[in-house]
Amino acid sequence: DVVIDGLFGSGLNEKLLGGYTSLSRQINDSGAYVVSIDIPSGLFGEYNTDNILRNVIHANLTLAISFPRFSFFFEETAKCVGEWKVLDIGLDNEAIAQTPASYFLIDEQGVRETLKKRNPFTTKDDYGRACFVAGSFGMMGAAVLATRAAMRSGLGLAKLHAPQCGYLIAQTAVPEALFSGDEHKCVITRIPDVKGYTMAIGPGIGRDEQTMDALEVYLRKAKRPIVLDADALNCIAERRSMLNDIPRDSIITPHAKEFDRLFGDHMTDEERLLKAVEMAQVAKIVIVLKGHYTKIVRPDGRVFVNATGNPGMATAGSGDVLTGIITALLAQGLHSSVAASIGCFVHGYAGNLARRKVGEMGLTASDIVDNLGEAFKLIMEEK
Amino acid sequence: DVVIDGLFGSGLNEKLLGGYTSLSRQINDSGAYVVSIDIPSGLFGEYNTDNILRNVIHANLTLAISFPRFSFFFEETAKCVGEWKVLDIGLDNEAIAQTPASYFLIDEQGVRETLKKRNPFTTKDDYGRACFVAGSFGMMGAAVLATRAAMRSGLGLAKLHAPQCGYLIAQTAVPEALFSGDEHKCVITRIPDVKGYTMAIGPGIGRDEQTMDALEVYLRKAKRPIVLDADALNCIAERRSMLNDIPRDSIITPHAKEFDRLFGDHMTDEERLLKAVEMAQVAKIVIVLKGHYTKIVRPDGRVFVNATGNPGMATAGSGDVLTGIITALLAQGLHSSVAASIGCFVHGYAGNLARRKVGEMGLTASDIVDNLGEAFKLIMEEK
Amino acid sequence: DVVIDGLFGSGLNEKLLGGYTSLSRQINDSGAYVVSIDIPSGLFGEYNTDNILRNVIHANLTLAISFPRFSFFFEETAKCVGEWKVLDIGLDNEAIAQTPASYFLIDEQGVRETLKKRNPFTTKDDYGRACFVAGSFGMMGAAVLATRAAMRSGLGLAKLHAPQCGYLIAQTAVPEALFSGDEHKCVITRIPDVKGYTMAIGPGIGRDEQTMDALEVYLRKAKRPIVLDADALNCIAERRSMLNDIPRDSIITPHAKEFDRLFGDHMTDEERLLKAVEMAQVAKIVIVLKGHYTKIVRPDGRVFVNATGNPGMATAGSGDVLTGIITALLAQGLHSSVAASIGCFVHGYAGNLARRKVGEMGLTASDIVDNLGEAFKLIMEEK
Amino acid sequence: DVVIDGLFGSGLNEKLLGGYTSLSRQINDSGAYVVSIDIPSGLFGEYNTDNILRNVIHANLTLAISFPRFSFFFEETAKCVGEWKVLDIGLDNEAIAQTPASYFLIDEQGVRETLKKRNPFTTKDDYGRACFVAGSFGMMGAAVLATRAAMRSGLGLAKLHAPQCGYLIAQTAVPEALFSGDEHKCVITRIPDVKGYTMAIGPGIGRDEQTMDALEVYLRKAKRPIVLDADALNCIAERRSMLNDIPRDSIITPHAKEFDRLFGDHMTDEERLLKAVEMAQVAKIVIVLKGHYTKIVRPDGRVFVNATGNPGMATAGSGDVLTGIITALLAQGLHSSVAASIGCFVHGYAGNLARRKVGEMGLTASDIVDNLGEAFKLIMEEK
Repeated sequence: DVVIDGLFGSGLNEKLLGGYTSLSRQINDSGAYVVSIDIPSGLFGEYNTDNILRNVIHANLTLAISFPRFSFFFEETAKCVGEWKVLDIGLDNEAIAQTPASYFLIDEQGVRETLKKRNPFTTKDDYGRACFVAGSFGMMGAAVLATRAAMRSGLGLAKLHAPQCGYLIAQTAVPEALFSGDEHKCVITRIPDVKGYTMAIGPGIGRDEQTMDALEVYLRKAKRPIVLDADALNCIAERRSMLNDIPRDSIITPHAKEFDRLFGDHMTDEERLLKAVEMAQVAKIVIVLKGHYTKIVRPDGRVFVNATGNPGMATAGSGDVLTGIITALLAQGLHSSVAASIGCFVHGYAGNLARRKVGEMGLTASDIVDNLGEAFKLIMEEK
Repeated sequence: DVVIDGLFGSGLNEKLLGGYTSLSRQINDSGAYVVSIDIPSGLFGEYNTDNILRNVIHANLTLAISFPRFSFFFEETAKCVGEWKVLDIGLDNEAIAQTPASYFLIDEQGVRETLKKRNPFTTKDDYGRACFVAGSFGMMGAAVLATRAAMRSGLGLAKLHAPQCGYLIAQTAVPEALFSGDEHKCVITRIPDVKGYTMAIGPGIGRDEQTMDALEVYLRKAKRPIVLDADALNCIAERRSMLNDIPRDSIITPHAKEFDRLFGDHMTDEERLLKAVEMAQVAKIVIVLKGHYTKIVRPDGRVFVNATGNPGMATAGSGDVLTGIITALLAQGLHSSVAASIGCFVHGYAGNLARRKVGEMGLTASDIVDNLGEAFKLIMEEK
Repeated sequence: DVVIDGLFGSGLNEKLLGGYTSLSRQINDSGAYVVSIDIPSGLFGEYNTDNILRNVIHANLTLAISFPRFSFFFEETAKCVGEWKVLDIGLDNEAIAQTPASYFLIDEQGVRETLKKRNPFTTKDDYGRACFVAGSFGMMGAAVLATRAAMRSGLGLAKLHAPQCGYLIAQTAVPEALFSGDEHKCVITRIPDVKGYTMAIGPGIGRDEQTMDALEVYLRKAKRPIVLDADALNCIAERRSMLNDIPRDSIITPHAKEFDRLFGDHMTDEERLLKAVEMAQVAKIVIVLKGHYTKIVRPDGRVFVNATGNPGMATAGSGDVLTGIITALLAQGLHSSVAASIGCFVHGYAGNLARRKVGEMGLTASDIVDNLGEAFKLIMEEK
Repeated sequence: DVVIDGLFGSGLNEKLLGGYTSLSRQINDSGAYVVSIDIPSGLFGEYNTDNILRNVIHANLTLAISFPRFSFFFEETAKCVGEWKVLDIGLDNEAIAQTPASYFLIDEQGVRETLKKRNPFTTKDDYGRACFVAGSFGMMGAAVLATRAAMRSGLGLAKLHAPQCGYLIAQTAVPEALFSGDEHKCVITRIPDVKGYTMAIGPGIGRDEQTMDALEVYLRKAKRPIVLDADALNCIAERRSMLNDIPRDSIITPHAKEFDRLFGDHMTDEERLLKAVEMAQVAKIVIVLKGHYTKIVRPDGRVFVNATGNPGMATAGSGDVLTGIITALLAQGLHSSVAASIGCFVHGYAGNLARRKVGEMGLTASDIVDNLGEAFKLIMEEK
């Protein structure tokens, strides 16, 4: 059986009550294939925290009118939406663009237009320099993956600052990158402020006290936007005063757990996002909230949703690769907000290419790196 | 000449005697191409230990009715069967399913149905963590192969616990995996019980006294199912009291020699299997008896036979790869028995893909790893 | 709108004055698509240093008659030329060849004719030996890239002389090459004069005082042509007396910045080239002035322009690969001038093959190495 | 112009004298395209050492009747033969087989028939074990290449015995192989006699006095056939008494220079071969005289000529790969003479596959290894 759910409309924005409730529960229990028009009845476009989802229609397929609703992108509400497709009913594009909105889907065309063709008369100096502060004993792979990802994302020159125990590993695995050895054998105890380099701090650095000290010292002096990921965020979570020292327009890339360690527990993805919107505005930073439909929250509170990627990318090292891409784009002169959005888009795109070749089970972080070149190439090709 | 052997039937289940014997010997010596219907005359479906195989018809081709007989899968009796194919005579599938049976062929459809499509809203935490206790001076490759195989089998996060001499090798070869260094430079002297990690012990650990001590100490405390392979089994064979400490539902993966070191010598594959059935039930563990037609014996005594794979996989490191796959599946939440069966099926499937590319002579254990992604992908695709 | 610019001709060789000037400015501001015949009006074929480029027609497309003009190949004047194509108007080839010229485009046919098919009865001794003096702590990748590039450019045997800290890296990454360890752990302090080996000095050696001393000592005794690149040039720039000790017919491969460090600042590419022509003649060396349209200046002052390559090659390590190729060709017996020209052509050709596979953003120096074999193969195939 | 040279015939077996001489010189100087029937006039099928080649017709193409002559395979006489093809005139194959001959072309069909399909009920123990005694500081690549080649040639298990400095390199580059560390850090000072392992000694071991001592001690006790290559042969050349200790049916694989160091200088390839025939019979060993048309000389004096391969294989490490292949085949139970012949055939076949992909200039020893699997596969496929 097929049920077409178009009664309540999405404009209603009110919870289903009374008879409607019992109707929707009946539909949900019927086992019928449910198609919702625009949005499942009972679901709001935004802010479903107080909504009783049991009473909301659980569609198998939602045919969104003109564009997807925000609630499609959260784990808790996505269950009501099922698979979704956009019905183009010919809305005027200009009208859409002028409608004030607070969330946006990152689309391939926008990414393509930002990533311009290179001018032939350029040298590696025109494509930026990035210094990765990454790695510690037993976690050097994170540093390697981030650095390799950056070299495959158009970066001119990469330097890796890591403990001495990372020397042989890094120079063997990424011959294109320079290596700067920390004084310590196993952990990072000093963060150099390399002039002219875009800094990225975090992949695999651990949470040694000396590393935290180094991060604290560094952040106090730091002025230009940096990228903070993984253990750098965990360090900050342990010494939260550092939060105030993150330079304006920096990018942080927490997944849900890291985000909660930084900003307190959240019950739902939507709650977490609302907090991120608040914190991005307060701290004037870009927050990349990682997950399925990664959300990039800009310092002005606008939210960009990324729809590329697949669950095969839920694998160790995947986040380190993302850090490498974003850092490379930042070093090439893109604004933090743009670098973060495009980075997420390309990361997921490369992951999708990798899936075609090695499937979801076989997908490793190295496969994402290996597909970055083709990803950029396909995205940038005129369609 | 072609001889059709259908006289005695497989239901007879009696040894060939008298005139029949001389007839079958005559046929075997005739040089004719012999086709047996259902099962070669004189061969039993099971329990041929006391059978005189000289008197059994040696077929070139056996056309099994509805399903292959158990005796097709042992080296000693397979010689009588020759090549075999199944004749589907339209038996009722449900009837087959309800017939009590003690052995089963692992089939692709069953594997496909168990390996479900991933939910997009998942993170690496949803795909488990595994800790490999593996490697020693001169045998670090075994640790690398097992860990890499696990990362290509859907595992969320891998950690390798190895001697210090394995550090650079592991971090260069498997950047996705964490490394935990043993106190000793060359051998493992301590087995950490990493909370939340599925443990796999054995590839390349050697048989140093300190390693045996560590294994003994670990097993005494161990509660959750673990995977034991290779040198871990050889260690146990030297101190057999450890056998009693293997946690319930653990998986051991001996080849014939390792099995005999553990449980005494056996003359034939069939004898060895019968012993395995007994021991699996006694110890409440899963025994993966490796070889052509690897047999997975469950704690309830049921035997699952794997038919994927090829003799090009008879190469160093092949078993380490299998350990990696099974461990990854166990860590992802499959039951031990299921993880073992599916692991063997995928291992052989990947080996067959590798053979198509590099042939039997050129096939190395790394090739099996490299084809795991494609193997999972092809198996999981709807047919 | 389309404007055809063919009024002034290229033979005029005079700056645009008066009314012409205002006309050309008007055309430039019009937004029309401008097609220049032969050369944009107001631009000279050579020597535009004193020209006021604002007054020159800025074409979108230039249709050069018979061959491109020299000014097409400099960053500052290329802007006026736009895209260019050659119109073959049937000039007599012999006549062209006999016209005295001081610059030449490197063409594929010439490269093909020089790279002869190998005689089957040859051994690795027939394809030369090269010793790379390269690498230092943190910059071993440069050494690896140069050595690997040489092995993929037909060289018989490569040796790498590097500090001790480079040992494991080099032997793992380039098993085909021998390693010679410097006495020092981190920098080069001695340059061996290995008999029968073509020497290449520079990639990743840094500018340690001890390294400079070693270079100074070496150059004083050196007699045969060598290849000097990267930090070797930076060392020489700090102790300029070494310039006089560079053996005749040696090859130096500076990019614009390295060139200026050696020979003083230059405002334009054309000025820089004129200086290079002077210095190549004075020092009797080959100067490879790297950039888009790399110019190879021979000891006799003739300039060869290379047109292969793409801006994706503006990435760390790209120059090290070029050094490896040129050194391999020199070791195989080509004259310095020829080795340099062919090396640049093949380097760009391999970079173009790499771009087809991984695009401009994803292109790394290792990709250029990986495509060298196919590049040589395609170039050498009869067309 | 085309000259057909069929006047003198190959049966004449006499030097050209008088008028014939002046005629052949005239033809050679004419610039005409010369086609010789069967064999160029004046050239002998064998034994041209005293022949005056100036007087022999220098053909561009030789159409050999039924089979190529021995003189086609030597550098000095091949010049007279030019390109050659066999004209099949329908000679009776059996008659050919019964004609006593002392040299043979290795043909693909013979190789295919010897390399049998594997029995599915086999384990890695059925495919032998080999121990490579190889490598020293700065020359570990040779050890890596030989070991990797063996693992791609069907070997069950490989062990590498090398100095301590080779540990990390070997375990990273060949995870499938075990490593056995010599007591010395930089050179081999002890050769273990590993029971059940086929021994191969030589690639990259250098000529340290301690290494020579170890080789001398080892050879005195050795009883089973071993493979000796490269520096092992150079060591023996320095202490020639070791020659007498080489076990019967061992295989030595010198190129021309190594051969001459062992057995004295030779002016021509043919002279060298005659010496090899003598020495193989005296020492009862297999001599693989490497070069274009590698000749395998058996202990009975018979010579097998290999025609696979190409001059792109004239590159560092190519010989180490050959040692790996031959050793793997020997360990799998082939007789020394057969292992050597098949090894050379497969080595050249893999090199030809590599050439198709990376061309002659780009071909490295690693490429040969990478194509071994496909080579065995294609050779073994039924045609």
